[in-house]
Amino acid sequence: MVSKATRLRELLERRALARIVGSRDALTALLVEEAGFDGLWASSFEISASRALPDLGLLTMSELLDACSHVNQATGLPLLADCDTGFGGNINVVRTVRQFEAADIGGICLEDKVFPKRNSFLGGGQNLEDAGEFAGRIQAAVRARTTADFTVVARVEALIAGAGLAEALRRAHLYADAGADAILMHSKKSTPIEILEFLQAWQARTPVVVVPTTYPHWDLAEAEAAGVSMVIYANHALRASVSAMRDVLGEIRLQGGTGGVEDTIAPMKELFGLTQVNRWEEWSA
Amino acid sequence: MVSKATRLRELLERRALARIVGSRDALTALLVEEAGFDGLWASSFEISASRALPDLGLLTMSELLDACSHVNQATGLPLLADCDTGFGGNINVVRTVRQFEAADIGGICLEDKVFPKRNSFLGGGQNLEDAGEFAGRIQAAVRARTTADFTVVARVEALIAGAGLAEALRRAHLYADAGADAILMHSKKSTPIEILEFLQAWQARTPVVVVPTTYPHWDLAEAEAAGVSMVIYANHALRASVSAMRDVLGEIRLQGGTGGVEDTIAPMKELFGLTQVNRWEEWSA
Amino acid sequence: MVSKATRLRELLERRALARIVGSRDALTALLVEEAGFDGLWASSFEISASRALPDLGLLTMSELLDACSHVNQATGLPLLADCDTGFGGNINVVRTVRQFEAADIGGICLEDKVFPKRNSFLGGGQNLEDAGEFAGRIQAAVRARTTADFTVVARVEALIAGAGLAEALRRAHLYADAGADAILMHSKKSTPIEILEFLQAWQARTPVVVVPTTYPHWDLAEAEAAGVSMVIYANHALRASVSAMRDVLGEIRLQGGTGGVEDTIAPMKELFGLTQVNRWEEWSA
Amino acid sequence: MVSKATRLRELLERRALARIVGSRDALTALLVEEAGFDGLWASSFEISASRALPDLGLLTMSELLDACSHVNQATGLPLLADCDTGFGGNINVVRTVRQFEAADIGGICLEDKVFPKRNSFLGGGQNLEDAGEFAGRIQAAVRARTTADFTVVARVEALIAGAGLAEALRRAHLYADAGADAILMHSKKSTPIEILEFLQAWQARTPVVVVPTTYPHWDLAEAEAAGVSMVIYANHALRASVSAMRDVLGEIRLQGGTGGVEDTIAPMKELFGLTQVNRWEEWSA
Repeated sequence: MVSKATRLRELLERRALARIVGSRDALTALLVEEAGFDGLWASSFEISASRALPDLGLLTMSELLDACSHVNQATGLPLLADCDTGFGGNINVVRTVRQFEAADIGGICLEDKVFPKRNSFLGGGQNLEDAGEFAGRIQAAVRARTTADFTVVARVEALIAGAGLAEALRRAHLYADAGADAILMHSKKSTPIEILEFLQAWQARTPVVVVPTTYPHWDLAEAEAAGVSMVIYANHALRASVSAMRDVLGEIRLQGGTGGVEDTIAPMKELFGLTQVNRWEEWSA
Repeated sequence: MVSKATRLRELLERRALARIVGSRDALTALLVEEAGFDGLWASSFEISASRALPDLGLLTMSELLDACSHVNQATGLPLLADCDTGFGGNINVVRTVRQFEAADIGGICLEDKVFPKRNSFLGGGQNLEDAGEFAGRIQAAVRARTTADFTVVARVEALIAGAGLAEALRRAHLYADAGADAILMHSKKSTPIEILEFLQAWQARTPVVVVPTTYPHWDLAEAEAAGVSMVIYANHALRASVSAMRDVLGEIRLQGGTGGVEDTIAPMKELFGLTQVNRWEEWSA
Repeated sequence: MVSKATRLRELLERRALARIVGSRDALTALLVEEAGFDGLWASSFEISASRALPDLGLLTMSELLDACSHVNQATGLPLLADCDTGFGGNINVVRTVRQFEAADIGGICLEDKVFPKRNSFLGGGQNLEDAGEFAGRIQAAVRARTTADFTVVARVEALIAGAGLAEALRRAHLYADAGADAILMHSKKSTPIEILEFLQAWQARTPVVVVPTTYPHWDLAEAEAAGVSMVIYANHALRASVSAMRDVLGEIRLQGGTGGVEDTIAPMKELFGLTQVNRWEEWSA
Repeated sequence: MVSKATRLRELLERRALARIVGSRDALTALLVEEAGFDGLWASSFEISASRALPDLGLLTMSELLDACSHVNQATGLPLLADCDTGFGGNINVVRTVRQFEAADIGGICLEDKVFPKRNSFLGGGQNLEDAGEFAGRIQAAVRARTTADFTVVARVEALIAGAGLAEALRRAHLYADAGADAILMHSKKSTPIEILEFLQAWQARTPVVVVPTTYPHWDLAEAEAAGVSMVIYANHALRASVSAMRDVLGEIRLQGGTGGVEDTIAPMKELFGLTQVNRWEEWSA
């Protein structure tokens, strides 16, 4: 059986751009698969929010692993897990790699901020980790894996922190030197301008992953042509849920019943279908 | 500090009808509280679906407890937990009561079907538990609680199983004799006709809880006048999420980007608000 | 990498008798490996007791899986998990198989008693499941596995329940017909008399597993010659712990200090060794 | 019902010295209660070791909380939880306090080393956290509690790190200023000499807790007279288990059976007694 690690690596290394989608739970993963995407992202922002927690480095490794295991087992798609800064020092990174590998998760992404980190879109307080220190963390992660295909992605937050392209490049090279399988270059500009500059200078040294949350209008073909290997739609399923739940709950409250919302929400039988009631009953007959 | 058990009991026993809403995770609970509802319901259907599992008695007590603890800690609202048939025999019910009580959950609801049960709206295979056996389960639950306010709701599935009103009433009385604090009378008719017949015969012996999933047009004031104490909107938040996620994921897939959906989904800053980024940063300053 | 399922199957099918030992936690597994045993057993009795619970069918599948995952990841030894009666109906067995398989656990053992079961040594209340029903459960388990090597062991409780050898044999054949990879024949006699009778009649149709808790003096070579494939020392590590902890705690309480027990308990540095402090520090350097 | 927090506070503030014992699981807690001790300690060293992990800051908050919840629910004794350095920054401390408080755990102990810490008896690498930074952590913990009785103990590692009595005192005062309810002064000398010096200078400003692992011969009456409020026997039950399991497993391996160890290990019926089989069967009758 091909491991999820191998599948994730294939997505990163194939010629065509891959698209993966943030899935905070197993049900979301089913919908992402149904829509035809290539893989799954486990976002610490989304998983924190599901637990009513802000994305401020509060989620423990155990909590993330638990959520990732559920997401991972729901479909055949490979999962890239957003492991923030690695949950502490090198030793915590080593344990993280082993636990995620044992759970057949495709790979992890580590970002070069100081623990506990703040969400990249919060503004302020985007403290970069010392680059050498973080490169050591990447190296520890790479050495800790027991299967060559388990992917370690290094996320560079230099542009988020306002440190400029040169610093972003310097860090990306350091992390690639340390063994990172891919670079996630993050930007919060409203256009891909910073990303394009990076891609040009990077010369495809490793696959590049981007998260176009703030520059959603970038054309996919253009991104692929510019050298992007993987795009992460990190939080859109959650955000779609929140607005829909807010609307529906408000309307139920106002109308004093659910009669008015029935036509706008999935019928029960769709959920029976998604959760494969029939197949489970066959298996257990 | 008033326990959640006391708050749930107050909702059941007060004159005014209370409305509680199925919340599969802590984030949903925040939205339910924001919309002004009275309490929370933890639906085994919703929590199973979140884990990509059908509602066929697969969820373990530990899994439900884990989900309920997260939901329960997210707000000050009391939570009524849908514990299916009680996860086995009397001894499993005893443990369930203790664990849920220790987690400060308001109360549990047990239904009188054979374990493992099938979702009540699936049709077929709605096997009723022996009534005396189930009354024993209710009694075991009631005796196991260590705080008087922890609520044990007995859910009668006789109407769902097509056993008729007389059987439903007989069972409800048996369970009330056994100490049930309230009766949840379930029906899958498209109007509240069966419920109205039950309410008239029941004469308010205990508070009555209903789940109007299939009869969503029942007027609240009418339900209250007829003697309903609590209405559960059991699965609407989840169903709203599913249709919204399906639409948004389909559109992202089709358009090759998220540009076209940005206006229909909650912006990041709404999530920052819901998860109280600012207050967490104050607390930890 | 050879899966744990393959390693467990090799133990069962090789010519030489294999010995596996009940390990309620990862630390015990380290000691079992160090002592040179062939594999691990996860006993519901031991794991329940670790949680201060009696062995009465209270442990949920999730709790057992969680404990087994920790035990399983501690060493390279394969683990056979004691899944009681399968946690409910066929559908719960199907889910159990998938979850344990996904956790790289070697196999599971299911016993033919009514859920929730009582510990076999408790006397009284040893209610046998209907044999056909249980054979269906074994069949569901076997069909649910996705890797051929994942082992399903059928545990026959007919002798424990006093139903006699003929019934034990009839059941063993039914379960083997249903696809069981091995038969665990349980007996609470103080000698292996019943087991010997069974082995003679069984004619090595499948590998046979025994649990000589009540007949500890059976010579290993004799057991092997009689046709036993695997012996489980199910609860001895736990029982050794309990007497040692009782003695030491009593002495500390009496003497008003730990001075008098220091020589009888493992020094800190032994624990540092067992938990590989040095290697973890190398890995994370 | 008196909260566990209140009970722990009473132990710390009463005139008589209290003795609490490291309990890595619920079963150990039962034995500690049986032996007549006053309370429970949840040691990160012991709980890590149970998971085959070294005590190097690897255990996540979730894992510790999970273990503590099991220990805490096993008896009526209050539990003080060893939360290492607090699992990150102030924000992680805030969450830790809330989670442990919600689980009805008596209190937490935080130590002033850099995260991830090394076990205090490992020698080398005992890096002290900046004292002001750590005082802020204590203050965050104290402000985060919602019940006044939840106890926050500040553990001073200055003596362990070789920084001397003056630094230990300076830190203890800073932490008491920040709101610590008690000071745990740690020492690895083979006599209580450092502790006695500290106690004399401290003048009972707050209750003082000690962990006499390396100075086991200190007389209890003398400790009480010197001003100690609480003694922690941190790891003796685990160490007793390890030597007993090693011996017994070695002997079983050597002898080829358990016949020779039966007299030295607790019989099954002792475990049935400890886990209250009879009471559970009464409750569920």
